Amino acid sequence: MSADWFRRRFLPRGPLPAPRPPRPRASPVPYRRPRFLRGSGSSSGTADASRRPDARPVRSPVRGRSLPWNAGYAEIINAEKSEFNEDQAACGKLCIRRCEFGVEEDQEWLTLCSEEFLTGHYWALFDGHGGPAAAILAANTLHSCLRRQLEAVVEGMVATQPPMHLSGHCICPSDPQFVEEKGIRTEDLVIGALESAFQECDEVIGRELEASGQVGGCTALVAVSLKGKLYVANAGDSRAILVRRDEVRPLSSEFTPETERQRIQQLAFIYPELLAGEFTRLEFPRRLKGDDLGQKVLFRDHHMSGWSYKCVEKSDLKYPLIHGQGRQARLLGTLAVSRGLGDHQLRVLDTNIQLKPFLLSVPQVTVLNMDQLEPQEEDVVVMATDGLWDVLSNEQVARLVRSFLPGNREDPHRFSELAKMLIRSTQGTDDSPIQEGQVSYDDVSVFVIPLHQGQGHSSH
Amino acid sequence: MSADWFRRRFLPRGPLPAPRPPRPRASPVPYRRPRFLRGSGSSSGTADASRRPDARPVRSPVRGRSLPWNAGYAEIINAEKSEFNEDQAACGKLCIRRCEFGVEEDQEWLTLCSEEFLTGHYWALFDGHGGPAAAILAANTLHSCLRRQLEAVVEGMVATQPPMHLSGHCICPSDPQFVEEKGIRTEDLVIGALESAFQECDEVIGRELEASGQVGGCTALVAVSLKGKLYVANAGDSRAILVRRDEVRPLSSEFTPETERQRIQQLAFIYPELLAGEFTRLEFPRRLKGDDLGQKVLFRDHHMSGWSYKCVEKSDLKYPLIHGQGRQARLLGTLAVSRGLGDHQLRVLDTNIQLKPFLLSVPQVTVLNMDQLEPQEEDVVVMATDGLWDVLSNEQVARLVRSFLPGNREDPHRFSELAKMLIRSTQGTDDSPIQEGQVSYDDVSVFVIPLHQGQGHSSH
Repeated sequence: MSADWFRRRFLPRGPLPAPRPPRPRASPVPYRRPRFLRGSGSSSGTADASRRPDARPVRSPVRGRSLPWNAGYAEIINAEKSEFNEDQAACGKLCIRRCEFGVEEDQEWLTLCSEEFLTGHYWALFDGHGGPAAAILAANTLHSCLRRQLEAVVEGMVATQPPMHLSGHCICPSDPQFVEEKGIRTEDLVIGALESAFQECDEVIGRELEASGQVGGCTALVAVSLKGKLYVANAGDSRAILVRRDEVRPLSSEFTPETERQRIQQLAFIYPELLAGEFTRLEFPRRLKGDDLGQKVLFRDHHMSGWSYKCVEKSDLKYPLIHGQGRQARLLGTLAVSRGLGDHQLRVLDTNIQLKPFLLSVPQVTVLNMDQLEPQEEDVVVMATDGLWDVLSNEQVARLVRSFLPGNREDPHRFSELAKMLIRSTQGTDDSPIQEGQVSYDDVSVFVIPLHQGQGHSSH
Repeated sequence: MSADWFRRRFLPRGPLPAPRPPRPRASPVPYRRPRFLRGSGSSSGTADASRRPDARPVRSPVRGRSLPWNAGYAEIINAEKSEFNEDQAACGKLCIRRCEFGVEEDQEWLTLCSEEFLTGHYWALFDGHGGPAAAILAANTLHSCLRRQLEAVVEGMVATQPPMHLSGHCICPSDPQFVEEKGIRTEDLVIGALESAFQECDEVIGRELEASGQVGGCTALVAVSLKGKLYVANAGDSRAILVRRDEVRPLSSEFTPETERQRIQQLAFIYPELLAGEFTRLEFPRRLKGDDLGQKVLFRDHHMSGWSYKCVEKSDLKYPLIHGQGRQARLLGTLAVSRGLGDHQLRVLDTNIQLKPFLLSVPQVTVLNMDQLEPQEEDVVVMATDGLWDVLSNEQVARLVRSFLPGNREDPHRFSELAKMLIRSTQGTDDSPIQEGQVSYDDVSVFVIPLHQGQGHSSH
């Protein structure tokens, strides 16, 4: 993505063109549930007509079907919010092949060996909005993008330290020292590959949705195990945590209009055209009205972490760029997340104002060094969409994990049973640990990844 | 600062005008050392001709002159790097007066009471570059800017929670609830005032330097005590740490081209004009050369935390926007810090490329709740310019503090003695804890603030 591209795409010089009505050239993305749920009940995945909490089934893989590392999975559809479950999930083995370079003179000639060079595992959750299509495309595509991006740099992952030149050819004798001084490690190549894969997947989704005349976007939370490390990449408001006997550690941060306020206000400051005179980029405790004119009220601008007072002018009465609190906070009155995939066509209702320039598809990546961690039998990573975290805190989830696992050591499906129990805990049943009235009506999807099972699984 | 202003200032449409030769309309800012050093030796503050480490005097306030909270201070001039000591310091009592509002109908009519409403204390270090003028102006000015900014919001600091309207007048009955939901506390007003004060001071310095035909910039590290809290605001590469018997806690982060790489690359991505075709915004382990053309080499762009490989094109051979490692890292080949005050006229040598759009004057503010901390006799905050931290780690400083204070309980000047000892520890003397060859030739200035002395000092 270049600056020129950004300007051509988002800053037309003349009056803004009307949004193009999508002209479908391909068939719509068919709705589906994750492949690993096959045989586990209603294949349409839509809930039955009533959608009472007790009538919505919690689904998980059939007994006998095992996911990577014997991970558990469960999901529930929302309570009448949408026809389809807009969450999607994917997992599997990640096989990275090595591209052998020819001799130096023939560097353009590559032999793609079919040899598996590096294997890892992959678990992903996608929480869709504006329709299920983007999440389905992401579930179908992101792992392939990641494999491609990893294969493009896998030669650099061979050595203890990535070489300056991918070919391994040393042009300057002190190149290894430059790389050393920058502190560049193999894991930085995996982080870079994850960042590039999210961007590539976002482009694929943009093209596919345009071709099929569909719309929508999704968040993406991905865990990847590779060479003794677990990488967690997040773009959106899903969350992953590590739960051990005496530790609860967040492995991701949420990206919402509130958590990314300064970045979003900064872009509106640099390119006020993006707001088309319809929004104010300033933050106030509430939307201002005529009575506030001339008064000094609390406000924040892009450069501020603290608050100050400003004298209210007429332009401050416009609708705020970021409005609402907590789960109600919206970007341009439209979107509850500030990172994710898709949404290429999304505009503010009845305007030409586009959401996409304010959205990032780049994930934040955290790295868990499994070798250092020495995982114990009941150490797990819990990954879930926001429907779980809206009603359960990290500590509550950790307590549920610790209370469930020790009593179920003999059950080979205990991690899926745990995932199901976590979901049932969000449905306001009698034995639920959540407060009265705190019930999730959203789609909820949960992976429970037992780290001990991953010991020795990674090759090379 | 508006986007229009930014574009007019930094993005002229025609060819860039030559930098205006400064036309002095005011007399130069006179060189001086901090006022509280009066009577403590050579008043010029320049070192004697030899500048051998053992000949450069460590200066601190004369015995009998006490700083706020009985804080200690010491400084040493650099070893022949510049004629003057480019560090500056300031401290004092901060008296915030209350502006009484008239009755509602007369809101434009204000009575400025001379009553002291709120008092606090202030300690500040400024590390100049390109001449001493900016740091002197900052030491003369920033506390007044801060007082003005605090007085502008002090009415909002009266109540337990800042009111939506500064007047206290409630226009919407649920206004307190909106403020509560945003989690806005009194300390957010102080943080906002610090952020605004740094910006105001930066503008003053810009005007004053232009008027006097001088140039230069400085970092700023400020500690402010107010209503039971200690606020540490930092813009640049100075550092403050809290040292307690069993805890060492950083109270600031450094802002350098390396730590702010993504923000700086992002601006160059959005406005490539700022680089005038002379620099590449991409990061490589070293500067590329002709032999690298067509090779795949390690690189990072603005959206990346990780690293990847790219095929080298001709434009990648340009000088990098950020170049060098660690203490040698430079922004546009020119500046070692990415935040601070001044530098309005600074351009890349022999070009019209301006540094200022890449620099931020906004500080990052951390808050220490003194009431919760319950400071003990020997709990101190150590604030120092980068000359100290270049050769001593936080842990080394903490060890020196803990080894010095208990044996010197009877000395009323022990905190200045400690500051002097810390500085001597950077000069490579026999009993120095630093490694062979790790000697500071830079200006070094140190405040040691004993927190126990601050107990009960703050009013209201």
